[in-house]
This record gives sequence, C-alpha cells and structure tokens, in this order.
Amino acid sequence: MDKTEPLGDHGDGESQGRVGGRMTDTIDHAASATETDAAATVASWLASFEEALTAKDLDAAGDLFQTSCFWRDLLSFTWNLKTVEGPEGVKDMLASTLDHVQPAGFGASEEPTEAGGVTEAWITFETSLGRGLGHLRLKDGKCWTLLTTLTELKGHEEPRRDQRPKGAEHGADKERRTWLEKRRQEDEELGHTTQPYVVVVGGGQGGIALGARLRQLGVPTIIVERNPRAGDSWRNRYKSLCLHDPVWYDHLPYIPFPENWPVFSPKDKIGDWLEMYTKVMELNYWGSTECRSARYDEAADEWIVVVERDGSEITLRPKQLVLATGMSGRPNLPTFEGMEEFAGDQHHSAHHPGPDPYRGKKAVVIGSNNSAHDICAALWENDVEVTMVQRTSTHIVRSSSLMDIGLGALYSEEAVESGITTQKADLIFASLPYRIMHEFQIPLYDAMRDRDAEFYERLERAGFMLDFGEDGSGLFMKYLRRGSGYYIDVGASELVADGSVKLISGVDVDRITERSVLLSDGTELEADLIVYATGYAGMNGWAAELISDEVAAKVGKIWGLGSDTIKDPGPWEGEQRNMWKPTQQEALWFHGGNLHQSRHYSLFLALQLKARLEGIPTPVYGLQEVHHLS
Amino acid sequence: MDKTEPLGDHGDGESQGRVGGRMTDTIDHAASATETDAAATVASWLASFEEALTAKDLDAAGDLFQTSCFWRDLLSFTWNLKTVEGPEGVKDMLASTLDHVQPAGFGASEEPTEAGGVTEAWITFETSLGRGLGHLRLKDGKCWTLLTTLTELKGHEEPRRDQRPKGAEHGADKERRTWLEKRRQEDEELGHTTQPYVVVVGGGQGGIALGARLRQLGVPTIIVERNPRAGDSWRNRYKSLCLHDPVWYDHLPYIPFPENWPVFSPKDKIGDWLEMYTKVMELNYWGSTECRSARYDEAADEWIVVVERDGSEITLRPKQLVLATGMSGRPNLPTFEGMEEFAGDQHHSAHHPGPDPYRGKKAVVIGSNNSAHDICAALWENDVEVTMVQRTSTHIVRSSSLMDIGLGALYSEEAVESGITTQKADLIFASLPYRIMHEFQIPLYDAMRDRDAEFYERLERAGFMLDFGEDGSGLFMKYLRRGSGYYIDVGASELVADGSVKLISGVDVDRITERSVLLSDGTELEADLIVYATGYAGMNGWAAELISDEVAAKVGKIWGLGSDTIKDPGPWEGEQRNMWKPTQQEALWFHGGNLHQSRHYSLFLALQLKARLEGIPTPVYGLQEVHHLS
Repeated sequence: MDKTEPLGDHGDGESQGRVGGRMTDTIDHAASATETDAAATVASWLASFEEALTAKDLDAAGDLFQTSCFWRDLLSFTWNLKTVEGPEGVKDMLASTLDHVQPAGFGASEEPTEAGGVTEAWITFETSLGRGLGHLRLKDGKCWTLLTTLTELKGHEEPRRDQRPKGAEHGADKERRTWLEKRRQEDEELGHTTQPYVVVVGGGQGGIALGARLRQLGVPTIIVERNPRAGDSWRNRYKSLCLHDPVWYDHLPYIPFPENWPVFSPKDKIGDWLEMYTKVMELNYWGSTECRSARYDEAADEWIVVVERDGSEITLRPKQLVLATGMSGRPNLPTFEGMEEFAGDQHHSAHHPGPDPYRGKKAVVIGSNNSAHDICAALWENDVEVTMVQRTSTHIVRSSSLMDIGLGALYSEEAVESGITTQKADLIFASLPYRIMHEFQIPLYDAMRDRDAEFYERLERAGFMLDFGEDGSGLFMKYLRRGSGYYIDVGASELVADGSVKLISGVDVDRITERSVLLSDGTELEADLIVYATGYAGMNGWAAELISDEVAAKVGKIWGLGSDTIKDPGPWEGEQRNMWKPTQQEALWFHGGNLHQSRHYSLFLALQLKARLEGIPTPVYGLQEVHHLS
Repeated sequence: MDKTEPLGDHGDGESQGRVGGRMTDTIDHAASATETDAAATVASWLASFEEALTAKDLDAAGDLFQTSCFWRDLLSFTWNLKTVEGPEGVKDMLASTLDHVQPAGFGASEEPTEAGGVTEAWITFETSLGRGLGHLRLKDGKCWTLLTTLTELKGHEEPRRDQRPKGAEHGADKERRTWLEKRRQEDEELGHTTQPYVVVVGGGQGGIALGARLRQLGVPTIIVERNPRAGDSWRNRYKSLCLHDPVWYDHLPYIPFPENWPVFSPKDKIGDWLEMYTKVMELNYWGSTECRSARYDEAADEWIVVVERDGSEITLRPKQLVLATGMSGRPNLPTFEGMEEFAGDQHHSAHHPGPDPYRGKKAVVIGSNNSAHDICAALWENDVEVTMVQRTSTHIVRSSSLMDIGLGALYSEEAVESGITTQKADLIFASLPYRIMHEFQIPLYDAMRDRDAEFYERLERAGFMLDFGEDGSGLFMKYLRRGSGYYIDVGASELVADGSVKLISGVDVDRITERSVLLSDGTELEADLIVYATGYAGMNGWAAELISDEVAAKVGKIWGLGSDTIKDPGPWEGEQRNMWKPTQQEALWFHGGNLHQSRHYSLFLALQLKARLEGIPTPVYGLQEVHHLS
C-alpha cells in the first residue's frame, strides 16, 4: 500500500525536465519555427496513418513505424491493456481489430514539439464506440512510441462539466423524490431486492477510486470492506506511517487534494480523506463486511458472493467481480521454529500497533524494507532498544533524491506550475514502454548513487547490504516487477548507519525461543517484541482464498511484467499481469496498486465494466496467457 | 441561506459576455495592436500613480482619477472594506493612509485589454505589510474604477503549493508526535486548558469557510454550532430545498466542487459536503453547542463567552468574537391574534418538516418569497390543498433567465472554459462599485422581463403582485439592500399561475381561529397546517440576544448599503453595513451571506483577525458610523 513508483526518463536518454519543459512551451510561447515543422510532421504522419487504417492497408500502416517501436493501447483498439512491438506486432493487432474499431479523426490536440530528434504530440481520435486520447513520438518521421487510450464511450459519457446533473428538478412533479430519498432507497434495496452489476471486494484506495468511476458511469456497484470505515486500512497501520509518495502523485479521480495538503500525507489524514471522498462521491460502501466466498455460476453468467455484514450473511449476485484486496492485503507471516514459545509480543508489521507499549524494552524487527525501517525508527524514537535483522539486500533511495531526480518532472509543484496536469503526467508516464523503461531508469539511479555516495558508504560501513535492482534500474522497476525490496529513506537509514538502530545482516532466523531470536550465525537477540516485517503474499492467494484454487490456477500470477528478474519470472508480458484487464476467468478482475495506479487504471477498468453492462461488444485482443501461479 | 446574487453588467453598459470574452483574449491569442496600446496606457497610468504615491503628492494622485470615480479597497490601504468616490475621496483616503501603507511595485499581472473606451487591467502591488491584487478600469487615460485587495501578509503567507506542509517529518526525533496525536491534543486542550484567539458563533457555510481560512493562517479558533453536525443547518430545512444558486457560484475556499457536482445542490448533499469539508480542513468544530452569552471584558481585552456543550457549561475567553449566525438564523414569527387557538400544525418556514405528514390536508402559507414558493410547490406535489397568502408584492425571476442573463458571464461552465476562475469572477464582481451597480442591473432585468413577458402576464392574471425592485434593478440589488423580497422560480410560479396553488393577494391576516385563517378581506381559509414563511429577523438581533442591547445599539444595523430604498434606509454607506469589517464594538465581527460571500469575504475577515493576532498595526480608515438599529 505504501509502495512508491518513481518515474524515470522516457525519451531518448535526456533528462525528464526537458520533456516537461517541452510540453509547456506550447502553452507559454507562441509557435516557433521548430514547432511549426513538428506540427507539419505530425499532421503528415497522422494523415498517412488514418489513410492506411481506413484502407485497411496493414503493410502501409506497418511502414509508418520504426523497426523498434512500441504501441501501447489501453482499450481503444484491443479492449485490453496491451503493448505490441515492431511493425509486425502493429500489423497483427490491426488485422484483428480494424474491422470493428473503425478508427478515425486523428489529429493533434495541441501544438506538437520537437527536441533531440524526437517529435512529440498529444492526439485525439475516435473509434466506432468511443473517443480516445493518445500520445505519439516520431523519430525520422516514423513512429517510435504510440499510446492510444479510450477515454469515453459514445452515448455513455460521464455527466460532468456542462453535462453535470441539474440537482434540482425544476417544475412541479407529483412523483418527485428528493436526493436523500433516492439515496436511502438505493441503500435499502441494492444488494437486497436489487442486485449490483459489480461487487468490488476491498474498500481501500483502489476500490474507492474504481467505485467513484463506476458511480459516475451509472454502473450499480457495492464495495465490500472488512473494516468499519473507509480509510481504516490506512488508520490501522503503525502510527508513524506517512505516505512515501508525494501529494502530486496521489490525487484521486474527480476531487484532487487541495493546495495546502501535505507533501507526505499522514496515515490518519489520508484515512479521513478517503472516508470523506467515499461519502461525497455517493459510493455504496459496505463497511464491517467480510467477503466469505465467491463462486462463478456459469449457467447464470453471474457470481455468487457470500458476505458477512454486521454479523449476518448476505448473498450477492453480481455479473462482475473485482478483487481490489490490495498488494499489501495478505500479510506474509513466516513460520520459524519456536514461534509458539515466544513469551513477548510478536506480530506481522501489518498488525504492529506502534511503539508506545514498548518503551524501554527490546525489539527485533525481521526485514529491511519500507515497513521494517519505519517501524525501527519509530521504536528507536520511543526509547526501545531495537535490532534490525537483514536477510537479503535492499534498495535504499533517499526521499529527497527520489523527488528531485525521479519524480519531479511529472509529479511536483514545478510540474503543476509548468502546465503538467495530473492527467498529462499519467499519460506521459503511460506512454513509456515497459520494455525499455529500465534503460531510462538506470542513469537516474546512477545519478542518485553519485549524489548520495557518502550516505551509501556509511550504510555499507554499518554492514547494510545494498542493491539497486538486478540491472541497476532502481526502485520503480522493482515496484513494477515484484512490488518489494526497497526503502525510501525518510530518516531511518541514518539510525542504521550510526548504530542507533542495531543491524545484523546477511543472516537468517534460526529459531525463536521464549525470550529471544536465534540467528543462523549463532547470535542470540533478546526480545520483548518481534515484528515480522516480511511483506505480503501475492494477490493470486486472494483468488484462492475467496474463490477457489482452481480459479486461482486458471488466472495465474498477478503483478509483474515478466522481466525474468528476481520474483518476476518470464516470459515477457509487457503489461502488469492480470491487473485492470481481462483475465482467463470470465468476469473476474483485479484492481489495485498505489494511489497513482488506482487513479489512472480505475478509468480503464470502469470503462470495461460499463461496456459489458451496456452489452457493447468487447472483443479482447491478446488475452494474456498463464505461465505461473505466483 | 438560500439567497442568490445574480450578477449584473459591470463595465459601461455593454453585455457581461464581452467582459468575460475580453479577459480570455489575453489567454488565447497573441497580443493585438489594441492590447499593446492598452498595455502602454496601463503601464503609464500605474507609473504615474506610483510616482504620486511615493512622492505623497495627493493632488497628482487625485488628478489621475475621473471626476466620477470609485476606489474600492479591501484592507490593503484602509484595514477596512471601503469605497471612496471622486478625486477628493481618493485624496482624503491617501492622506490618512499613505504614511504607513507605503504602496509600491504596481504592475499589470496579465495583458491589459481595451473595449468600448474602457481599458481594463489586473494589477499586483505591495504595501509595507503585504501583497495585493487589484483591478483597474481607465477611461480617457484616467481611473474610473480601482479595486485594491490585500491577499496576504508578508511573513504570514498561507502554507500552500510549494510552501505546503511536508506532513512526514523526515529524520529521527525522540519528541516526535504524529499528526493524529497533535490533533487529539489540540482537541483536548483548546477551550479547556488553552484559549482560542477567535470564537466563531455559527457553524454554517460562513463559519466553516472562515474557520478554514483561519486554520490555514494559524489562528487558533473554535466554531460553535448548536446543531450536532456540520451541514445540519441545511439538512434541517424543508426536504425539497435545493440551492437556488448554481454550483459555479458556490465553491468553498481551497476545495472546489468537482466537475460532476450538480448545478443546484440538494440540501442534504451540500450538508454532507460541509461536514466532510469541516473534517478534512481540520476545523475545531463544536457541534451540539449553544452560545448562551458573550460579554466583552474591557480590562482584559477579551470576550467572556459562555457556551453549553453537550449539557455542560464552558466559558471561553477569546480575543475576538465573530457572529456568523446567519441572515436566515432567527425566524421572524409574526404574532396574529388567535394563533394560540389553532388546532392544527403551525410553524415558521424554518421549522417546516416537508409535506409528507400533510397529504390530503389543507395548508395555508403566509408569504410569497423563496421559502413560501418552495413549500407551496412541495405541498401541492404531495396532494395537499394549498393556498398562498401574498401580503406585499414580490420580485420573481426565472432560474434559467437568471442563469443566462444574470450570472453566466462570471459563474457558469462557459465562464470556466473561457478562463474565468472563481477568484477572477469574485474580483471582477468586487470591482463593481455599489453606488452605480443598479444602473447595470436595470437593463438585465428589463431583458428578463421581455424574455419572460408571457410568463409574467400569466402570473399577474392569476392575481400575483409583481415587482422588480423600487428602481427596477431586480434581485441582486434587493439581496444587497434588504436580503429579501424575491423568488427564483424553479417551477412554483406555474402552479400559482394555473391555480394549482391557490393565491389570495393584497390582503393581510386578520386573525387565526381554531381551524382557519381569517383574512383582512373577510375570506376564511380552512387550514390543517399554517406555514409562516415570513422571513428572518436582522442580524443585529443576534448581537442583542447573545451580547446585550447596549452592544447591539453601539453596533447598529447590519446588512444593507444605505440606498434609501425599502428596508435599506440611508445615509449611503457604500459597503454592506457591519459585514466582514471593523464595527463600533472592539473585537466584534459579523460574517455571513451566501456561499459566494462566505468564500470571498472570509479571506478578508481572516486577514484582519490574523493581523491582530500577530500584533500588526491595523489603523482603520473610515470606520462606519451608526445610524440605525435595524
């Protein structure tokens, strides 16, 4: 949940600042000669592209692409999240989709720009079913990267701006019901006498953002959450927790955080925001409700979802089921010999109450990623004698360096001031092909390593085992590939470096005794408290637990790109496995990730669900194959 | 509360659309020749103005103004809300203020524009204490209207954008307290072991908007509200109530409504928004708390405010007291002979529960303004036989005409799309001198009268007594002058016109009997329900009730401009009497009005309170005199 996605460079190896700068040139300045050239280049390419597509001339279309090229489509052509590569990939995708997609009306939506041999443009287009927004990069007049996204379905646009609801219904009407009466009626009927089209299991940021989109699209939805109140999944965490991602990265759809919102939101404050958001966005949010089981009824084409709400069992029959149970939802509690003998407190980091009860005592924290560091620091601040046990190497990056070098160009106050809206930032980010993303990340992390060389040296001197990812591509690639293995330093590393937090590294736990942790090197650590900061189980486990092992196996591994690095086995998938897109199990969807992903991908998942509700044909191109369970 | 302020034209008699259009020209297009001229004219005027001010040459300054001119200052020169008129007014104000204000740095903040002989510019400037934003209109090279506003105090800027709080405090700190711990501590201490600097009585939209500003400025504040939850003052109204003002007019500071928010917000929905706003803005909001009395302790320079909170009495000692009790806070219940004999239900419109209990019964509604119409329509919709008793004439304007002709240029989706932010709209509106505002309103209402001639004819044929204000200036002037006397038609007028709602007009109530209302013309109306939609008492009464008759008399009439029209006796004040500015009673302030006013003026009231908290000298120029009690 407190995962972070730093953003890398995404052009031809130059700094991100340039890309941000180029985009806003079109806002701040009159068109220059270069921009006029860029406009002509883009207009010419788009005209040829549309001509080839209209003529269904696949060879002509393929010829418009570089040999090394990437077309990422979010729904508009494929009803999938899909990246195709090379002219052959482009042609294969078009062959399967052109007949029904009928793309047309391609044009630049603002002045294209050119720098460093790359011409960039924001584009709009239409398909037979909807309207699209995209981003194009040309090199030598041919397409290097293309992003196409579906933004709305024709005839099913969201009621906003000049289409917003009127609220008051003017005139006189003997059948009038007030807003409150309608809300109450919905609350009484939905899930009881009427059935939701979608049930979302998990009411964290993911379920809430998706719920808001679905409400706006008129898709009847119930969100099921085991905690009483929206926001509790944050409130229940250790008390010192603040978001590790900055505010510009964290906006929810529809209601952005105000300008006075803290950079790193304290957990209870973000909890209050989520609760408020859930209420004003009018979500059907069932708190204190546990999902017991879900089974797909093939005959009826619907799910049978059994939930326990405030102690009584209710069976829901939605057509679609979304698991938004979270990457950090299922604690990975290790089993060490002797655990049952331990006389002190022991718990997974997910259940750590904070340091207050342990003042003056001895604590051992097993693990060395985000939660381990945050918890060690908070314990130390409360005069607990604390030892961190590091079993494998960890990637550390300082928050300030990550903000300056990794995120600043897209998600910062400066980005906002230079005209990079959240939507633009999300789409620029989405336009960077996963296949080559690490190439642009490596120089950034090299730069951070240089900048913080003295810091890293001190950490290593204290015995800390550092890494920067298998290929040196750093934090964000670790997040996308495996979702773990890092700490964004907000202060704890100094405590490790100076010995305030004791560190034992390169060891494993041998066994737990009544009063201590015995390590593989023979060390015995006395302990009143053991915190297992050992991460979270993959989301596939949720499918097994809530539905069945059979369905879990059918769906396969969730998350990861197939990069063939640690915890992200190949083959290459090119998108995050099973996330926000059709799975091998009919009508089963997975939603989640950090606040950025919850915001961005909730639109595309909501549009997929809306299309199915309306009976719009949604032929999926390139449905993912299953290679692994976890 | 459900008052509306339509906006009039505000230039030289041309349509508003033109003003909006002109403003956005500077955003959309490159500078034209006219604009270059306008820029030179403005630059030259500002340079001469600054030179005269720096040299303290009052004659030179006065010479820069038209004979008929208006300079409206919101704090920056006067520590008051004050409009001075004519070169002599300008000179008098400058003579009293220049020495300490030290204005400097005047410049246009965006490209000035010219149309119809009027050159317009947005300007920025500084004073010794703060930064300012203003608006200038020149005719023939001389100032016709000038608005100067203080936007922030140097050294006390609000923590927002790049100055926003960090949230997480990085590093390790043994004294660390979390956000939640700090909030809880404040909640436990403030008002008990520590004293707020400000107590705001009344937690409606006014108190909430002001509380949010004060929180951001670091002014310790408690808001006292008799209802349990924020938003209840809306929730408790009659069930069919929706805001009569459109959403673009209604934003609160900091968190604007999202793009999907209804045009006319249902009362319970706005209630939820206010409740959530209060929470996420971290206000110290004491619900279920009644203010019993307030007395100014001259010796201690502080108020002694006695409140009853959840049944126990607490004495607060703030330095400043704000009454935000609302224009619609004190029901004006008439006393008719025989009222005590009435056997049915009778209540003021403020306490009307809605139509549900009265289906099939007979109702009489005394009054013919907003609440009377809304209640009559809702009763009719629920099959109540309802009669409206109109005692005096009423101004009716159709909602759609008001939106199109009255508000659209500044507060509409089109205005937003053409670059008129809420702040710009508020400042344009603030730049229009009250003295001549009616001149620009009259043609708008003439246009509405033309457009809806057939509608008005039908209403008059049904016996309805219409007016358009004493001078034909319509709804908004009525609002500013007297705060009553109108209905924004959202459907009830058709029911009156076609006889569905019975109308008896030009009569008064003679007496009430056990089962009926007897009118002055001898008519007897059988009644199971009587609703007294007879408006609200002036805010001065709140001062009398909560503080003392002596202080109420010292402060005098609240609201109104001194236009010497009905319910707004002269002499001319030029600003709303006693609202948002210093009063004759030390440390006593009045805040309120509709959502637009709560948003806009809360900034200026908050800055006045902040300056006093910080011990910044605040010499008031032109403190208002007292001429009337009510």
